[in-house]
Amino acid sequence: MSPTLDAVVHDAAEVFVGPNDDGTGPETVEDGAVAIADGRVVAVGPTDAVTREHPPENAVAAVDASGGTVLPGFVDSHTHALFAGDRSDEFAAKLRGATYADILAEGGGILRTVRAVREASDEALLRGLLDRLDTVLATGTTTLEVKSGYGLDTETELRMLAVLAAADARHPVDVVPTFMGAHAVPESDETDAYVEAVVTEQLPAVAEQGVAEFCDVFCEEGVFSVAQSRRILEAGVEHGLVPKVHAEELTHQGGAALAAELGAVSADHLLHATREDARVLAETDVTAVLLPGTAFSLGAEYADPARFREAGATVAVASDFNPNCYAPSMPFAVTLACVGMGMAPDEAVLAATNGGASALDRADRGTLREGALGDCVVLAAPSHVHVPYRFGDTPVAAVLKEGVVVRD
Amino acid sequence: MSPTLDAVVHDAAEVFVGPNDDGTGPETVEDGAVAIADGRVVAVGPTDAVTREHPPENAVAAVDASGGTVLPGFVDSHTHALFAGDRSDEFAAKLRGATYADILAEGGGILRTVRAVREASDEALLRGLLDRLDTVLATGTTTLEVKSGYGLDTETELRMLAVLAAADARHPVDVVPTFMGAHAVPESDETDAYVEAVVTEQLPAVAEQGVAEFCDVFCEEGVFSVAQSRRILEAGVEHGLVPKVHAEELTHQGGAALAAELGAVSADHLLHATREDARVLAETDVTAVLLPGTAFSLGAEYADPARFREAGATVAVASDFNPNCYAPSMPFAVTLACVGMGMAPDEAVLAATNGGASALDRADRGTLREGALGDCVVLAAPSHVHVPYRFGDTPVAAVLKEGVVVRD
Ligand SMILES: [Zn+2]
Ligand SMILES: [Zn+2]
Repeated sequence: MSPTLDAVVHDAAEVFVGPNDDGTGPETVEDGAVAIADGRVVAVGPTDAVTREHPPENAVAAVDASGGTVLPGFVDSHTHALFAGDRSDEFAAKLRGATYADILAEGGGILRTVRAVREASDEALLRGLLDRLDTVLATGTTTLEVKSGYGLDTETELRMLAVLAAADARHPVDVVPTFMGAHAVPESDETDAYVEAVVTEQLPAVAEQGVAEFCDVFCEEGVFSVAQSRRILEAGVEHGLVPKVHAEELTHQGGAALAAELGAVSADHLLHATREDARVLAETDVTAVLLPGTAFSLGAEYADPARFREAGATVAVASDFNPNCYAPSMPFAVTLACVGMGMAPDEAVLAATNGGASALDRADRGTLREGALGDCVVLAAPSHVHVPYRFGDTPVAAVLKEGVVVRD
Repeated sequence: MSPTLDAVVHDAAEVFVGPNDDGTGPETVEDGAVAIADGRVVAVGPTDAVTREHPPENAVAAVDASGGTVLPGFVDSHTHALFAGDRSDEFAAKLRGATYADILAEGGGILRTVRAVREASDEALLRGLLDRLDTVLATGTTTLEVKSGYGLDTETELRMLAVLAAADARHPVDVVPTFMGAHAVPESDETDAYVEAVVTEQLPAVAEQGVAEFCDVFCEEGVFSVAQSRRILEAGVEHGLVPKVHAEELTHQGGAALAAELGAVSADHLLHATREDARVLAETDVTAVLLPGTAFSLGAEYADPARFREAGATVAVASDFNPNCYAPSMPFAVTLACVGMGMAPDEAVLAATNGGASALDRADRGTLREGALGDCVVLAAPSHVHVPYRFGDTPVAAVLKEGVVVRD
């Protein structure tokens, strides 16, 4: 039996396929089409060529993308999208001049989310996450990394990871789970003792359940030192978890070099990364994940994408969606990557698709080449440039996940 | 016969009514409701009080806003949302380092939109505008000012204004038409001669057809001087058109003082306005319209809302939606007003609702007080703070226009 033709998306003004062969820019097709069978792209190219071989009338779904653009689904490689509680009052307080210290004194900050998550039922956590998955899907995200790290004890970290698995099973968006027990130090603990608990209690329990793929750590002054981060990430590797590092966000600590040393899949934030950091990341194939929403929310200087481009590193753009940066939309991140960080539109869209896939070690997505997953976004706009060009607006006409229309 | 009860929106976590009596902040109601009859608000207050008098089951539409927020519909008081063509390539060129001069040399800029509008059919213009009205409605805008000014000749300016009237008649969003023949000087003309054409040809024709309410002018170095702007706006007043002024955007020219002198309804942009400008605007009741999207797109310094707040001026926040700032969303403008300009969330939301109504001389909207139009937005979020807090995301659950659910 021939494979089921899931979908043919045809007559698009532009198909944004992915990086071109020499990695110098995107490959795009004018008046293009994509055919998807058994969940994978089987043909991409000019509409007449694709539809001659794969007639839309033979497909479960024929999607007329006239005048529009087809892009790979966005791969958001850095979020903390599983949380409870409402911290919008801290956003308002900061605008009225409250300092971070004021907010902490009021019981705010990350440990407030930890309290809320510990108190929330599994069902409430799942419901909240599923709502947020609907939100990100509506803006074109088809793969979303989500970190634990609002539990900070074995029980709650495991509960968070279980909720991620439950959401992944129920929602078309692929949820990629990262264990981040080392997101902060709980109120009651001293840092070294907490590192010990992460290594000897949390990690073995997480590994035993097989509920996480990556292990991440917040390597930052006053949080986890390079030595503490190394200890946790090495223990993670022993348990089969691939390292990721929150590196050089507020200060330069050496987290990027650590990521390179340990063969991490990504180093994230990098606002204070040096040229030398960029060089070692490129050399060791660690993806540089830039999070412009965070800089925007902090009023901080953006990371410098030229530094990583010049070094030849793979760059991803991600949302950092979390209660302190309520930014679920990848098109918004792409707008900030352009307007705030000076990336070119094609570079930013590549970073939000193919770059995100690299940061999650998912070679099967982030492009629309033959063999890739049939995850794509149809925009009611004539080119990928409209992703950043339209501020705060995403003209998503349809989203397909593995060839199935999951939103239109 | 008792009036038709159009809608009861009930059980909202917060109803954001509008400015409080002493104008020092917003009036909000917890666990609130709004009842609308014959298109107007007939009751607002705690849900039990409102629903006792106006049972939801007697209304055409009962809207359960549990856990959500009800706000007045956004009043976007400054846009150039009627255009044709695609200038996203200029956005990309600027990110690759092109200067404004480069873009002009390539035939880009505002006169490119003028060419596209002159060439577009009435039907194409209308279709494009109706699509954009759908977009703004989806983000909660219920009143949208739109300027002409991409015609720059009598025929095309009149066509643009006719399209605005047609769109207003067909779409639930109220379209407020502003004549802006003095948006730029056409390629073929010398400025003084063009001013003469605006005054002696365009304005009389527009006035005769009764298709515009306001007359606006781009008072800026190299465009229209204060003297030229005065001549146009005074002629507009003679024809019954209320002045508006694009003032102190790129340089300080004296447009704000001119707005005050002529009793304009608003002075807009104001990035370079002085304290003295703010004082005269306050004294003469000219609304200061701030457009944070423009500064964001230019990478320029934002206008300083404190200057106008301290002077006691009424402040509006608007989108400036145009091909050079493709920013249709008022919630995005509110986010920028907070994160970029430092406004408090309640101040920014007031500026985007009640402030916008002031800038359009529409005392009947921008609040949910009794007697106001029943234009409201229901957000799936627990307070108005979530409008700016959620970057690039607007959790609009429903929009009502004069009591009719026009989007859910
Ligand atoms: Zn993070
Ligand atoms: Zn304007």
